[in-house]
Amino acid sequence: MKTGKFPVKTSKVMELIDITDLVSELLDEGHESGLLFLYNPHTTAGLTINEGADPDVRTDIIDGLREMVPLDFPFKHLEGNSPAHLMTTLTGSSVTLGVENGRVVLGTWQRIFFCEYDGPRNRTLHWHLLESK
Amino acid sequence: MKTGKFPVKTSKVMELIDITDLVSELLDEGHESGLLFLYNPHTTAGLTINEGADPDVRTDIIDGLREMVPLDFPFKHLEGNSPAHLMTTLTGSSVTLGVENGRVVLGTWQRIFFCEYDGPRNRTLHWHLLESK
Amino acid sequence: MKTGKFPVKTSKVMELIDITDLVSELLDEGHESGLLFLYNPHTTAGLTINEGADPDVRTDIIDGLREMVPLDFPFKHLEGNSPAHLMTTLTGSSVTLGVENGRVVLGTWQRIFFCEYDGPRNRTLHWHLLESK
Repeated sequence: MKTGKFPVKTSKVMELIDITDLVSELLDEGHESGLLFLYNPHTTAGLTINEGADPDVRTDIIDGLREMVPLDFPFKHLEGNSPAHLMTTLTGSSVTLGVENGRVVLGTWQRIFFCEYDGPRNRTLHWHLLESK
Repeated sequence: MKTGKFPVKTSKVMELIDITDLVSELLDEGHESGLLFLYNPHTTAGLTINEGADPDVRTDIIDGLREMVPLDFPFKHLEGNSPAHLMTTLTGSSVTLGVENGRVVLGTWQRIFFCEYDGPRNRTLHWHLLESK
Repeated sequence: MKTGKFPVKTSKVMELIDITDLVSELLDEGHESGLLFLYNPHTTAGLTINEGADPDVRTDIIDGLREMVPLDFPFKHLEGNSPAHLMTTLTGSSVTLGVENGRVVLGTWQRIFFCEYDGPRNRTLHWHLLESK
């Protein structure tokens, strides 16, 4: 099992950042097969897989989350970022992906996104590669 | 690590389809143990584990998502299926399950569901079996 | 692959319970490395990773979910716990964590939480440890 980390720099309060190319670069030997596990160690951010062809989709996901999650609720946590913590739980902290011959196996329209819910910040992601025999 | 794909045909715009039997058939030798990873390569669909005994639960989950997710928000994505993309991110793209002696280990009331959010369509799921030693 | 189960007792209708110490105790030899997979076999409960430093965050997550999810919708499921089933699908049934030298790898503020959405109950969690070579 190979493992490592890589940085993601965000520039907005909330945004989805396409990290597919960063993830592909982890598979530098080009012949790995198995499963790739990506882990987000932050509590106001997430990881998701969604459409990457039209950049409007990632904006719509953020806008939709902001409509759904109560932004003006009298939350107790004094930092004021409870909506971001809730979005983290809704999105989830990790994604797992198949790998074939050194390439991440994604559907036609799928891309991998880092979800920033309380930025801008310098973030770090962890990865683990389980190679099949 | 064994891997493969199987089709799921959906018949409604939004529905949860019980795929537990299809998943069980993947374990055809009947003596595998380890972990089974199911992956959904679509961006307007998801995978979830929930109650299967009462078919009303799967209807209620769809109805509840339609109440929560803003269906009439002025989303930018011109295809009009942004609520389906958002539901995909809320649900997640994969599930992982324990396998013991050729059987998927589920709780008493649990079944595995494919979540169609923009159907009807012909869908495909990917699977990976990590056998323990 | 090692595997096992452990109990979690909940005391409220809805609450997040910090199970990080229970999870750490699974790694009793203190030198394991790899991935730890936690699985929730219940259909009105979930698993999430979020901030543990301020106990208000876990209260805010429950309060936020109760604001988002339609509690008074005319759901069909007669048990009356459809909001709990929906929260289960929103949260997800499992978490996967990296393990290094017998310790679960969490971010600075992260803790692992069992999410009770229809308690109080006696719950059980399953775990699988994939050790790297």
